[in-house]
Amino acid sequence: MSANDNTVNIRSNKGGYHHGDLRSALIETGLKLLEQGSAETLSLREIAREIGVSATSIYRHFPDKDALLAALAAEGMAKLAREQKAAAKGKDGKEAFAEMGRAYVRFAVRNPALFRLIYTSLPSAADPNCVNQEESPGWLLRQSIAGLAGEKATAAQKRAALLRAWSLVHGLSMLILSGQIAGTDADKLIDEVVSVDSLKLR
Amino acid sequence: MSANDNTVNIRSNKGGYHHGDLRSALIETGLKLLEQGSAETLSLREIAREIGVSATSIYRHFPDKDALLAALAAEGMAKLAREQKAAAKGKDGKEAFAEMGRAYVRFAVRNPALFRLIYTSLPSAADPNCVNQEESPGWLLRQSIAGLAGEKATAAQKRAALLRAWSLVHGLSMLILSGQIAGTDADKLIDEVVSVDSLKLR
Repeated sequence: MSANDNTVNIRSNKGGYHHGDLRSALIETGLKLLEQGSAETLSLREIAREIGVSATSIYRHFPDKDALLAALAAEGMAKLAREQKAAAKGKDGKEAFAEMGRAYVRFAVRNPALFRLIYTSLPSAADPNCVNQEESPGWLLRQSIAGLAGEKATAAQKRAALLRAWSLVHGLSMLILSGQIAGTDADKLIDEVVSVDSLKLR
Repeated sequence: MSANDNTVNIRSNKGGYHHGDLRSALIETGLKLLEQGSAETLSLREIAREIGVSATSIYRHFPDKDALLAALAAEGMAKLAREQKAAAKGKDGKEAFAEMGRAYVRFAVRNPALFRLIYTSLPSAADPNCVNQEESPGWLLRQSIAGLAGEKATAAQKRAALLRAWSLVHGLSMLILSGQIAGTDADKLIDEVVSVDSLKLR
């Protein structure tokens, strides 16, 4: 899957951008520059320079850097969800669930700055005004666990099973990103650690 | 267990510090101030002010902030190891292993800034000059897994089992610290998620 899917980048004749296209181009370029550095070093001016527009035209879409980072995080979450769904496609039950978990870790390994940004930007689960919690990275896992845990599973059992699966893939991601696991091909490692029979679903 | 164990804080008669005592006092105060803020906001001047010594006398022990942070991270790792060992004491096999994992998450929840600092300061596993890797937070888990996995377990199986256990506790820690899990008593949650029968040891 390309890093550019679902983004549009069409310059108009005179080198300017149509309104919606500029927003997409800003996000696309923002994602690219994010991975070359970090959320801390990313700047609106750098993005403007990269795509050849004035800083003023950026501010129409993103009044400040936080607004841009929020948009990048949202695009990152959508991209993660797309990749998890694509990985699970055509698989059943536990195998589909394991594939979603593996896709989560692969996403983190391939987009480290974006992965970190998502978790910096995510609203707290304790925030009662949070309407987007269902789009959080754990959401797909949560959706799947209910069916897998079986009808007799209690709410507490399902919750523990979800948190175990989410913790496993999140922890593996963070350990890889912080350089704690060396000397192994990441994809092979992910397949071994996030194995179907390592999932405790109840 | 107190936050102050294994640190010494003895003022000499005139309000000054003996050499070794000042170092201990700096670390102890550094740990306290770290948890009131973060590694980013911590300053050597603030620590000097807090314990009433000149900035100059601090520089004799820690030439710069990075040197202090490295000492705090080392103390943090030692403290984590002590708490893991204490939690496992008197337990056997899988139960001891689960208790060490739970102690890891409790440590993260109770010392969030220190826990993050440890992982910022840890040398990469890929660094061939790294002699301290065996003191890393995964070390105790690694030590224990060999016996638990059984004689017939291959090196790859032991490695996957270690990474599963470490990922589980590290991921749960990070999800709690980033505010993704709400509405439950942390200790109860940790006991449920890091359960003995959720450990896949081979």
